[in-house]
Amino acid sequence: MEIVDLADLAQKLFGDIRALSSDGVGVTRDSYGEGESAAAGYLAGFAEAEGLRVDIDRAANLIFSLPDTDPDAPAVWVGSHMDSVPQGGNFDGLAGIIAGLLCLVTQRRSAEPSPTPLRVIAFRGEESAWFGKAYMGSGAVFGKLSPQDLELKHRSSGQTLSSHMKNVGADVDAIASGEILFDKSKAKAYLELHIEQGPVMVARKIPLAVVPGIRGNVRHNRITCIGEAGHSGAVPRWLRHDAMFAVADLITRLDEHWRVLLERGIDLVVTSGVVGTDPVEHSISRIPGTVGFSFEARSKSRDTLEGFYRLMRSECASIERERGVRFEFDRRLESAPATMDETLCNALAASCKRFAIDFEAVPSGAGHDASLFANAGIPSSMLFIRNENGSHNPYEAMETEDFILGVMVLADTINRL
Amino acid sequence: MEIVDLADLAQKLFGDIRALSSDGVGVTRDSYGEGESAAAGYLAGFAEAEGLRVDIDRAANLIFSLPDTDPDAPAVWVGSHMDSVPQGGNFDGLAGIIAGLLCLVTQRRSAEPSPTPLRVIAFRGEESAWFGKAYMGSGAVFGKLSPQDLELKHRSSGQTLSSHMKNVGADVDAIASGEILFDKSKAKAYLELHIEQGPVMVARKIPLAVVPGIRGNVRHNRITCIGEAGHSGAVPRWLRHDAMFAVADLITRLDEHWRVLLERGIDLVVTSGVVGTDPVEHSISRIPGTVGFSFEARSKSRDTLEGFYRLMRSECASIERERGVRFEFDRRLESAPATMDETLCNALAASCKRFAIDFEAVPSGAGHDASLFANAGIPSSMLFIRNENGSHNPYEAMETEDFILGVMVLADTINRL
Repeated sequence: MEIVDLADLAQKLFGDIRALSSDGVGVTRDSYGEGESAAAGYLAGFAEAEGLRVDIDRAANLIFSLPDTDPDAPAVWVGSHMDSVPQGGNFDGLAGIIAGLLCLVTQRRSAEPSPTPLRVIAFRGEESAWFGKAYMGSGAVFGKLSPQDLELKHRSSGQTLSSHMKNVGADVDAIASGEILFDKSKAKAYLELHIEQGPVMVARKIPLAVVPGIRGNVRHNRITCIGEAGHSGAVPRWLRHDAMFAVADLITRLDEHWRVLLERGIDLVVTSGVVGTDPVEHSISRIPGTVGFSFEARSKSRDTLEGFYRLMRSECASIERERGVRFEFDRRLESAPATMDETLCNALAASCKRFAIDFEAVPSGAGHDASLFANAGIPSSMLFIRNENGSHNPYEAMETEDFILGVMVLADTINRL
Repeated sequence: MEIVDLADLAQKLFGDIRALSSDGVGVTRDSYGEGESAAAGYLAGFAEAEGLRVDIDRAANLIFSLPDTDPDAPAVWVGSHMDSVPQGGNFDGLAGIIAGLLCLVTQRRSAEPSPTPLRVIAFRGEESAWFGKAYMGSGAVFGKLSPQDLELKHRSSGQTLSSHMKNVGADVDAIASGEILFDKSKAKAYLELHIEQGPVMVARKIPLAVVPGIRGNVRHNRITCIGEAGHSGAVPRWLRHDAMFAVADLITRLDEHWRVLLERGIDLVVTSGVVGTDPVEHSISRIPGTVGFSFEARSKSRDTLEGFYRLMRSECASIERERGVRFEFDRRLESAPATMDETLCNALAASCKRFAIDFEAVPSGAGHDASLFANAGIPSSMLFIRNENGSHNPYEAMETEDFILGVMVLADTINRL
């Protein structure tokens, strides 16, 4: 019984779940809703048919294991999420669950359980698209969903997260009270296989990547640059306080710092996703008096985030002096980076080498359930599978061949823990 | 009879016309409408009471002169416009007409006509705010209003320019046919006094400025930079095609070229008044795939406009190569600069010096009726009066003292032509 023989099964599982969650454009598996539950039902049915044990935790996540696993023994956990964004792709989340199940199926069919028992967890509610909150399923078991979070409304049903969770059988009272529903002492490690959501692996021509960390971020939803409006023809350069030229100057300076920091080997991405002059007053012949823009920096390193943030503020102060403008900042938002466990990362890398698979270290720019395990103190790591066209869209394109390589590495690593 | 004795009269004229066109916020003298006609009626009444002759040309502009002026003698023309933008200021346009009238009043009261007869023309319809078209009154007499222009609709009445012009007595058939209604052979010179619409003179502490030219411009209403959208966390710098970083880079390069050109004494202003990521798809965590922006350069020199435009296109091409983005351009729009007559400018400057008035050469960034005279081949020049807070707003602030200095220089110059 070899993993490589399971390629057809993998395709059938992806195909069946795609069919039952198709929306005509992509797939829609709404968190704590119909699409996600349909996937959960299919996965449970498949697991039972394979002779696996299926449990449901108090947050309504599914847990798969070999039927004779000692419930008190520390296990290797493998997980990811069942839900998708609206009109999303089929692989974001689902790939990690099917990968874990294929490992269990191999162990079951060959009657060769891993030395450390394997448990596969299929989370509900990872995507923020539905309730404006991410990691609800993993957050719930780690006591991280607040009563306010539970009052968040579904984007289309208008019902609360609490009522949606209750409908699928979650213990919302325990969750609201912040009770820890996951016994950390029984988790030796957490591994998550996931499609890459960026273009690096396609560009680098590598099917697999080991994820050394999940980037945290520091953000402002809106920074306002306030200059002075004026007639575009009548105000010379030395009397201008052009808010747009000031913002362009800032972005260009940040871009230059970013370039230099990358040359020093620092992990960083910088984005201004929302930028604009004010539609109420802007015109071609008016010097922009105000420009609003967002700022986001992401890095694996908390120090880099803090350092780059300070650099941004200091460049703003310098531009204020040079251009006679003023920057106003809304609340600074941040999310902490999650460092993956070095021993686990090395184990995944060693497995890649054993199979002679080209791989590199690629940090995750997007957040994952793995962050919650890592930040709860459980040694965690992730394996990325090459994927074209990004994620959260119907054009996600993971090759089955690459996926099977990932499952081989995952199974090999599990067997050696 | 000295100009300086007319300060009270000037204040009364400005005050009376402000009162009759007040809208509660600023002044509203709508082109070919009630507010402009009220001002016209007042001015005609005042001129007649002063014993001046009042004619109405075939485009319904008013022409004032001494009663005994030889109608066939070439004259010095002084003019500006009666209309204002909605909720505008009292001085933009009106100052030039009152200045001309005060020169005539001085000649009439002192019975000392200028060697070359003076004619003062009060244009209607200079502001584009009402019909989306500027210089209608001066354009009409130079055969520059097309039948399509005459079909433009008033911003609030919804009536055509043609019908509005007919209502105030203009010969719209002659205007539509492009007939020249102004006899150039009878114009020795055209002079226009106007408030400055920018902050230069306040900053330089000069009450008067001689205008060496009226800036033309080259524009694109919309240039679109097309890059590639992506997850802000998952796409590293070397795989990005960030449309916003590209546009910021372009603006910063143009700013640097502009700075260097100014150091070489070149007249230029550069503005991107409208810039923005696409509200339909932008978000903080999405790399902008497209950014739209406007481009405008203004200069007294046609060569500078052409040169800077080519520089902009060449920087776009360079950024396309460096960043893997693409720029798409809508139709290039342009308006020609108007050069003021050197002899007339020198005459105005000589008058300033005679009165020991601090002045400088300040080009006009906004367009004026004087452009049409200059481009019709009539020697033309303009005199700017210091004015705080720009124009087209109720906060225009011209001091009567500065205005009187301007009228003194104007009268002195006229007397020496």
